[in-house]
Amino acid sequence: MPNQLFENIKQLRLTPLLNQGAFGVEKEGQRVTGLGALSQQPHPSELGSRTFHPYIATDFAEMQTELVTDTFEQTVDVQQQLLALEQVLQSSMADSEYIWPLSMPPLLPDDELTIPISEYTPAVKAYRDYLTKRYGRRLQMVSGIHYNFSLSSTLIVRLFDEYYHDHYVSLKDFSDALYIQIAQNYVRYHYVLTYLFGASPIAEPGFLEDMTKLPEHPVRSLRSSELFGYSNKQLLIHFDSVAAYVESMRQAIANGDLISEREFYGTVRLRSHSLDQMLETGVDYLEFRGFDINPYTATGIDQQQLDFLHLFFMYLLSLPKLSGDLATQIQTGRQLNDTVALENPLQPSQLQTQLKTVMADLAQFITDYHLDERFKQAWTVMNERVQDHRQTLSYRLTQAIEEDSLKAFALKQAKRFKCELTETLYQLQGYTDMELSTQMLMFDAFQKGLHVAVLDRDEQFIELTYQHHHELVKNGNITSLDRLISGPLVDNKVVTKILLASHGMRVPAGAEYTALETAVADYQAAFGQRAIVIKPKHSNMGAGITTFLTRPSEADFIAAFKLAQTYDQQILVEEFIAGSEYRFLVMNHKVQAVLERIPANIVGDGRSTIAQLVAKKNDNPLRGEAHLTPLQNIHLGERELLMLKQQGYRPEDVPLRGSQVFLLQNSNVSNGGDSVDVTDEMDQSYFAIAEQAAEILNLNITGIDIIVPNLYQPYDPEHPEMAVVLEANYNPAMLMHLFPMMGQARRVSMTVLQLLFPELAIETD
Amino acid sequence: MPNQLFENIKQLRLTPLLNQGAFGVEKEGQRVTGLGALSQQPHPSELGSRTFHPYIATDFAEMQTELVTDTFEQTVDVQQQLLALEQVLQSSMADSEYIWPLSMPPLLPDDELTIPISEYTPAVKAYRDYLTKRYGRRLQMVSGIHYNFSLSSTLIVRLFDEYYHDHYVSLKDFSDALYIQIAQNYVRYHYVLTYLFGASPIAEPGFLEDMTKLPEHPVRSLRSSELFGYSNKQLLIHFDSVAAYVESMRQAIANGDLISEREFYGTVRLRSHSLDQMLETGVDYLEFRGFDINPYTATGIDQQQLDFLHLFFMYLLSLPKLSGDLATQIQTGRQLNDTVALENPLQPSQLQTQLKTVMADLAQFITDYHLDERFKQAWTVMNERVQDHRQTLSYRLTQAIEEDSLKAFALKQAKRFKCELTETLYQLQGYTDMELSTQMLMFDAFQKGLHVAVLDRDEQFIELTYQHHHELVKNGNITSLDRLISGPLVDNKVVTKILLASHGMRVPAGAEYTALETAVADYQAAFGQRAIVIKPKHSNMGAGITTFLTRPSEADFIAAFKLAQTYDQQILVEEFIAGSEYRFLVMNHKVQAVLERIPANIVGDGRSTIAQLVAKKNDNPLRGEAHLTPLQNIHLGERELLMLKQQGYRPEDVPLRGSQVFLLQNSNVSNGGDSVDVTDEMDQSYFAIAEQAAEILNLNITGIDIIVPNLYQPYDPEHPEMAVVLEANYNPAMLMHLFPMMGQARRVSMTVLQLLFPELAIETD
Repeated sequence: MPNQLFENIKQLRLTPLLNQGAFGVEKEGQRVTGLGALSQQPHPSELGSRTFHPYIATDFAEMQTELVTDTFEQTVDVQQQLLALEQVLQSSMADSEYIWPLSMPPLLPDDELTIPISEYTPAVKAYRDYLTKRYGRRLQMVSGIHYNFSLSSTLIVRLFDEYYHDHYVSLKDFSDALYIQIAQNYVRYHYVLTYLFGASPIAEPGFLEDMTKLPEHPVRSLRSSELFGYSNKQLLIHFDSVAAYVESMRQAIANGDLISEREFYGTVRLRSHSLDQMLETGVDYLEFRGFDINPYTATGIDQQQLDFLHLFFMYLLSLPKLSGDLATQIQTGRQLNDTVALENPLQPSQLQTQLKTVMADLAQFITDYHLDERFKQAWTVMNERVQDHRQTLSYRLTQAIEEDSLKAFALKQAKRFKCELTETLYQLQGYTDMELSTQMLMFDAFQKGLHVAVLDRDEQFIELTYQHHHELVKNGNITSLDRLISGPLVDNKVVTKILLASHGMRVPAGAEYTALETAVADYQAAFGQRAIVIKPKHSNMGAGITTFLTRPSEADFIAAFKLAQTYDQQILVEEFIAGSEYRFLVMNHKVQAVLERIPANIVGDGRSTIAQLVAKKNDNPLRGEAHLTPLQNIHLGERELLMLKQQGYRPEDVPLRGSQVFLLQNSNVSNGGDSVDVTDEMDQSYFAIAEQAAEILNLNITGIDIIVPNLYQPYDPEHPEMAVVLEANYNPAMLMHLFPMMGQARRVSMTVLQLLFPELAIETD
Repeated sequence: MPNQLFENIKQLRLTPLLNQGAFGVEKEGQRVTGLGALSQQPHPSELGSRTFHPYIATDFAEMQTELVTDTFEQTVDVQQQLLALEQVLQSSMADSEYIWPLSMPPLLPDDELTIPISEYTPAVKAYRDYLTKRYGRRLQMVSGIHYNFSLSSTLIVRLFDEYYHDHYVSLKDFSDALYIQIAQNYVRYHYVLTYLFGASPIAEPGFLEDMTKLPEHPVRSLRSSELFGYSNKQLLIHFDSVAAYVESMRQAIANGDLISEREFYGTVRLRSHSLDQMLETGVDYLEFRGFDINPYTATGIDQQQLDFLHLFFMYLLSLPKLSGDLATQIQTGRQLNDTVALENPLQPSQLQTQLKTVMADLAQFITDYHLDERFKQAWTVMNERVQDHRQTLSYRLTQAIEEDSLKAFALKQAKRFKCELTETLYQLQGYTDMELSTQMLMFDAFQKGLHVAVLDRDEQFIELTYQHHHELVKNGNITSLDRLISGPLVDNKVVTKILLASHGMRVPAGAEYTALETAVADYQAAFGQRAIVIKPKHSNMGAGITTFLTRPSEADFIAAFKLAQTYDQQILVEEFIAGSEYRFLVMNHKVQAVLERIPANIVGDGRSTIAQLVAKKNDNPLRGEAHLTPLQNIHLGERELLMLKQQGYRPEDVPLRGSQVFLLQNSNVSNGGDSVDVTDEMDQSYFAIAEQAAEILNLNITGIDIIVPNLYQPYDPEHPEMAVVLEANYNPAMLMHLFPMMGQARRVSMTVLQLLFPELAIETD
């Protein structure tokens, strides 16, 4: 060490590519009751169909969930998606269910045949029956983490192009040689990971019919041991070359040692689409199957583990090729691993010296190749475990054993994780930096089994896929369901009004101005005594808008006009329509939800000051700052103080009990307004108005703002002023319908998915 | 004067509404040969079908075109649309055809039955036959201007609401009273307009079988005279009230004096959808039919005339109600008009004193009601004609008579107008302030008979309509044919590349960075010796882009990265692909045009300096500034001088004959680049690449930029680098295809119309 390969990487200045790769994780976990018994409930129906769900399936038993991440170039993305999947899974289970956070199963029934296997298709059932016969159901109840890894393809290509094309016949051969090298060394050094990650010190009652066959003392990892874990016993699969691997695998299948490749429980597998494919195009990735569930993290594997594994595999590649007979070496590796796996975790390892050497080598490796800081962090955590066995997971777990069981500990962890994962309803764990509406849409997609790809995180750009049907979504509901022209259309209030009016809809009368003089001359002639609104043509969230409920003085008119001019060159002067403004969310020609937005306000209790009432209202966990929550805090800023002053209030005044005090005129939820779902209260006759407006503007997903003086009184076409359409939106907020302050929540993000993927027949609740 | 109505208007501060109204114009004109004979060619086929064309039809004779504008609230809009229609008409005629600019027809054949009548439907033919029988064909060959007018509806409503609701039973009654007042006074004061606008001093040979029946001297307006003009002779239609008008009209039809309302040739008509409708909902507008074609303007009526008419009609409303017997008054009015119409224009009018009084009254009216400046301008022009009869159109025309004919004058004007209207191919007259691509699309729509409404002029927002099918278009090709998501999609180069690459298309390799350090560390590893481009993620027209054809020094890399950072936070570092970049315009899944864009350059002639060659190249009339022309001037700015310097040139250097010198790297036409249509040269195999990219991105109308090293060599899927897709656009430029510097023009704006209105079966040329 360092070998020639890594010398070349350094010389060709390719070391940054060592930080890249491709990663994916699978994680199994048992659904259990609050008492730690296997859940008897079927797989949650909210999770759609297991026949295609790409992320959340079941393993052997019906309650044995399996989370499968996509492949990512960064481990942090794997961790984020795994966290999201864990949240979606746990949010979709019954309230009384939890995910058992240990690899070794909870208490199993006396008669293993009462363990319900998952048999959602005949083929699945047949394979489960085969496994039952061959291994028994108990063993199949062990859960774990699989980790899929491949090197940066750019690294492989550039190494081959710039150096190894003279040494290998093809890129494939070169690539295969790299993976074979990692796989060979992995078997040899597996014990390192068993020491660091081992977390199955004991089995719960019922794991074996005769529990006395288990070791007398706790161990580091029952699951990783030859005797008690998942293994094909004496089966020998060759790692001399890809060809040898494929050949030995085929032989094992022909002999009946394996029913198929998937039954091979080796700690590492070479993977491609199929064995035939592997011979033709080479190894796609390596699958490592040996990791116990880490019970100290909700995802079963933490970021340091993910990064350490990446580091470790590269390190294995940097080691010299194993000398001597490979089969012997593999045998040695297995023995070392078994030794570590069955050690008492309360004692230091017999192999501590070797472990320390490996850690020192790894530190040097990080330094030599200028690897990312995250590798150093991962190394630091693992090095502590090597230096002090009391830092290992197995030691800590052993300390948690009560009455020969980890049940109490496991349930405590399971409940804590479920609480953490599900307490913030409006967030999708792992993606909390994204817009809340996108988080909700992704939650729904993950739940129903649509494939989710975040194409541009900062821009809220995701792709959803079902089979060969791809749909792009931006900001939660900008999709292919609407028209390109609709964006500029609804951004342009004047054109919107022209169209609505030309189809006979009632809109506020008004005109567009650039010059103050023309506006001043005109407005009296056009509006007389009517109330008016002055606003920038292209306004956002109510900025620059002034409302006059009676005819303003010329000075006030000019001041308001000039204020609007600070936001836009074009200014609209419109009649002001009295009545409450409602947001009708229309999707696919149908009103999905109606919301009343009430400007920021407090209601007096006769004792508290306005400032106190504001603070109290802001205590609502749905309220917060910077759009990180569905509702926004009320502020006592300049605008609010002015509005209070106009009503004769100061923040330290105590309003009468029951009197409502408004702090803003503007009803946008983003300004601290209240949101009240009134879908069931609003007279249905108004739905047609909103739907017609959406139709005229050719909008599929839209929010239509309509002034309705009385929501209970049916619309009368003889009195068009009973429904005045103010504007439409092409990217309507969904969050306020998903999480209204009052009234019924409407799961409108799921409706978006229904519309995008009608073939999926998603049902909303 | 002022009457009570106008006192109220003033007191209610409604005078600004006097500046408003609704206006429309119809203009007839004969197609003639360059020798002044009636054209024997059929109505131009490029103008689509007369059965629905809303703007360009034929009147009585096949060569008698009729332009019909929409109704607008401002006269300036009428004038603009009329100009555009005139351009479209004249551009669609044969090269050898012109529009006769006089009301009186050109030389008519001896046998009037050889004048081809337009008979494109059986109903049309039947009516023409009736007219032939009743009036003869010669009289029907007279052309003129019709002017439709209504008052501001806001004015009427506000007056009624705030004052007249006590005086009239209904808004309709009040409104009808206003229109009746104008109509009555109009008949009385018609002579004023005949004096000002009269422009038919003589008839050309053949107008009467016996030409000696015409007046011995030239007159102001043959056409406006009772004897020689279009009239229903002694028919008396009543203007006492709307009811009386309808009743007398019905009587005339019952008597066989009129075949229908449309045969009524009175100088003013009350208009509604039908006579029945008029009784029910009142007068919609007034139609004034008495105006000669003004031969000094291409549209036959100029802006001052349009405004003067508006002013005049309001003035008529302000006059006291006619006293005494209305029929007598009308008779008096007709006589006065006939007197003026048949006066010798070389003499002052007998009614000059009355005319001067009217003009003085009008001046006072403008002042009293603070009317817009444009009324003052119109008044000034007309007042000159009253003060000096030599300023009248009829005087000027009389001066132009040669050998008892105006043919020479008419042909000179006709040819001048056609030249002016059609010389600037890339503009639509009347709308030259709009984007050129929108002008071209509107040209095509006007030509094919789609209804065109400019909804927001500054924002290039138009609505096209065919029957009940409406389509919005912004910036020439943002339409309902594309998806809302496509805008943000193609704006996002990273997402675009992800999608294209995931479908197996070749795109430039690259990565996105925010931090300089990461980029510097990465680029060598990822790109090695390859040429690279550094650019802002969201760039426009090539700003902030640096290309390195060989691996840059670290300093150069950093400088380029920082330059890009001045445009965007996200920076892309991509491999640079050698080869020419082509723009494939794809519409409806098919390549419509392929363009090569060549960066600003000149080719030496061995004698001129670079500066001189640039100036020479800029002489091309297609080149100009500020996107007002299809191609843009080449500048000798900072960037260009730097590029010259890098090649060892100064602007005063004389390049070798035939040597091409580039002034920029960037090939955007907007930077002075050349555009060359290569649709027929490009190997068809590349069309599939562009079409596939459009398909993947789900774009209907798009420009796909592809690097193709050799356009003649067919694409080989084994060598994907033969077509590297750079980016897509959702609002692709059309102008460079419509007016390429070299190669064949492609009428792609017409393709947009075809796609929007497939039911119209538009054929492109």
